[in-house]
Amino acid sequence: MTRLLIKNADVITLNDHSDVLYGTDIAIVDGRIRTIGAVPPDLHPDETIDASDHVALPGFFNAHTHAAMTFERGWADDLPFDRWLNERIWVAESALTREDVRWGAYLAAAEMIRSGSVGFADHYFFMDEVADVVKEAGLRATLAWCVFGMGADTEIGKGLEESIAFVQRWQGAANGRIRTVLGPHSPYACPPAFLETVAQRAAQLGVGIHIHLSEFRDQLENSLAKHGVTPVRFLEQRGILDQPTIAAHSIWITPEDMDILQTKPVHVVQCPNCHMKLGMGVTPVPDLLARGVNVALGTDGPASNNDLDMLEEARLATLLQKSHHLDPVILPAEMALRLATQNGARALGFSDSGVIAPGRCADLLLFDFRKPHLRPRHNLLSNIVYSAKSPDISHVIVDGRVLMRDGQLVTLDEERILYEAEKRALRLVKQDMHGVRAYNGGQKK
Amino acid sequence: MTRLLIKNADVITLNDHSDVLYGTDIAIVDGRIRTIGAVPPDLHPDETIDASDHVALPGFFNAHTHAAMTFERGWADDLPFDRWLNERIWVAESALTREDVRWGAYLAAAEMIRSGSVGFADHYFFMDEVADVVKEAGLRATLAWCVFGMGADTEIGKGLEESIAFVQRWQGAANGRIRTVLGPHSPYACPPAFLETVAQRAAQLGVGIHIHLSEFRDQLENSLAKHGVTPVRFLEQRGILDQPTIAAHSIWITPEDMDILQTKPVHVVQCPNCHMKLGMGVTPVPDLLARGVNVALGTDGPASNNDLDMLEEARLATLLQKSHHLDPVILPAEMALRLATQNGARALGFSDSGVIAPGRCADLLLFDFRKPHLRPRHNLLSNIVYSAKSPDISHVIVDGRVLMRDGQLVTLDEERILYEAEKRALRLVKQDMHGVRAYNGGQKK
Repeated sequence: MTRLLIKNADVITLNDHSDVLYGTDIAIVDGRIRTIGAVPPDLHPDETIDASDHVALPGFFNAHTHAAMTFERGWADDLPFDRWLNERIWVAESALTREDVRWGAYLAAAEMIRSGSVGFADHYFFMDEVADVVKEAGLRATLAWCVFGMGADTEIGKGLEESIAFVQRWQGAANGRIRTVLGPHSPYACPPAFLETVAQRAAQLGVGIHIHLSEFRDQLENSLAKHGVTPVRFLEQRGILDQPTIAAHSIWITPEDMDILQTKPVHVVQCPNCHMKLGMGVTPVPDLLARGVNVALGTDGPASNNDLDMLEEARLATLLQKSHHLDPVILPAEMALRLATQNGARALGFSDSGVIAPGRCADLLLFDFRKPHLRPRHNLLSNIVYSAKSPDISHVIVDGRVLMRDGQLVTLDEERILYEAEKRALRLVKQDMHGVRAYNGGQKK
Repeated sequence: MTRLLIKNADVITLNDHSDVLYGTDIAIVDGRIRTIGAVPPDLHPDETIDASDHVALPGFFNAHTHAAMTFERGWADDLPFDRWLNERIWVAESALTREDVRWGAYLAAAEMIRSGSVGFADHYFFMDEVADVVKEAGLRATLAWCVFGMGADTEIGKGLEESIAFVQRWQGAANGRIRTVLGPHSPYACPPAFLETVAQRAAQLGVGIHIHLSEFRDQLENSLAKHGVTPVRFLEQRGILDQPTIAAHSIWITPEDMDILQTKPVHVVQCPNCHMKLGMGVTPVPDLLARGVNVALGTDGPASNNDLDMLEEARLATLLQKSHHLDPVILPAEMALRLATQNGARALGFSDSGVIAPGRCADLLLFDFRKPHLRPRHNLLSNIVYSAKSPDISHVIVDGRVLMRDGQLVTLDEERILYEAEKRALRLVKQDMHGVRAYNGGQKK
């Protein structure tokens, strides 16, 4: 049993009353928040953190990413989507090894902890490597092995049976910090019968599904031309949406699609930074929220974002809707934080996270407010959403364990990760292929 | 004569060839870059900075702000514009004192140096205080005392003659780091005859003008109804646009307006974060650039942004256009950096800044790339625009002088600034007025 005491914090609870507490103490026992305020006299903490001038916030949940794609960060920018995918991403991934995914995931884990993510929904290949890294890093994750259901599938994705074996190996591992779901790629990249099989197997296993949905306008148009229905209706007809489903993107959806989504256990994930960068469009988040759909936020992979910064996603979630609708009140700062924290926790199946309250999971962050851009403190929540940067996060606590203390990573060897991950990434993408200037490791020319 | 040597930096020059140099040395003598590459044998530097694993970039120029409004950061969020202005901003500013502006400007200067701004265009009141702070901080600035030209003007803005006296006191001060312009508020808040007088006096003084232009759609509609012409045409008819003019915002402009702007010495300033947050619209930056108009970026005041972070403005400048036009190639990362650096330098009249090249002003930044979110280094420029955060900036050099060294401010007493500025800000806005939760200074309740 580990006992942690956080002293004198200002606390944005994100509870149902939107309570903000000033200069209070948080007692944590065995992964859960025991008290806020009066410290139990028998606490005898193993560690005490002085949080004066710091603000506590529930940790972020990144509800859609491909974490190991850190190795492609900056490798495919300012390109049309087809060139981005065909000339860059698939070329680099064709040479991907199990060890590459491991080091890409290590780099991602270091970045996620530093930027305040306490959990993430990953959708990629060689997922045992990612699970190992999650376990070691101390994070939470809901992991899906991406499958296509075509022919022998791909070299790196061995197909549905392997992804089911992954589920059976890892569901509930690492003290419940690891959850698993099935990961069919998308309506357009999976045959209809395969999607029906995935839905049946997910129901049998009692796990959810994580899938890409309606990312670009042409996907909507192609689905209507090929199947006579929208991608949402197509998935509904395959039975996919009867399972708890993380539906990433959901940009080009109709009012009738929203009628479907609001009756199903679907979690829509907007990735504002990625959607803006690739010119994809704007997920109708206010409409979905008004219908009671759970909307969360994700970064997507670092090849399309280009980082794993959920604080930035929260800020962009509110800025993008305000700009798109020319309406400064349409999605307030507090709602953006709820999307990035508790709504993501719910999408990933970690519903005891996302609120700072007694009895809830101790998954929380401290922001160091001793910075010019975080003063004055008229409104702590506003300062976090509109002014704070992820490096202002000084401490990250997951399941009651300190993963970052005063800006230092506790569970990971960051220096080795930076070195190994970069070495592998530079080799993998063969920098001289597409006119990207080669980085020579800082050697003089 | 001060001599500075930066060793082993990777350098994004932003020169005409878009050169990126790896592991090279920059020699700085008396405020100017003397050499890049071979170090002069007679340099004998006063200070040597080891820039291994760091990336050098020209410093940012914030081309439109009201810096001292730091005291209203977080005081007026998620409100319709009329309530933002009438219930919050003008209420707080009605009690503004000279000393408040001084400490608000100190807080802004600390934040600007930390986030890599080397110069800014300020438009506010009590500008002698701001000029004093600029001189002490070591920054560059182009300063305008805001005037309205109505009645006795305002209590805090004493009118055109005072703003002209300010120009005469400060033009070229602080080794040329301070420049001045005239600051009529806007076409809608200044009488026509007054604007004509301002244009004449600016021409006589040989200084430019800094003005708000076409911020909201109703300003365009009201101008057409009242004057029969757009705000741009209205300013042209008053003679304003014949002077070098910083035209902040310029959102609701017509193709005919752009015909005017491209023939005049006008610098358009987009403030992407502010425009998104207040739901104002999208400045047609690609069209303006195609017409050869100089477009720069600004933050606007911290009451509407809510920070002074030009790196974030550069990122939003590219993301916003891509999203607005559903086009991932419309405004590439490098162009966004040019808007935020050299185009701003040009708008402010510091044309020798904005490029890292021999003979140019030594106004530059170092980014510390020893961070997970900045690896791998496939593309240093892309990593800065799409992944870096302003706290990754470790060193800021202006006019050859180090203003921040390894994250420590050199010219300002940051601890005192945080304390004094917050104390004044909390008093000024009377926190209990509008249901904003009062910050009690971290004392337990």
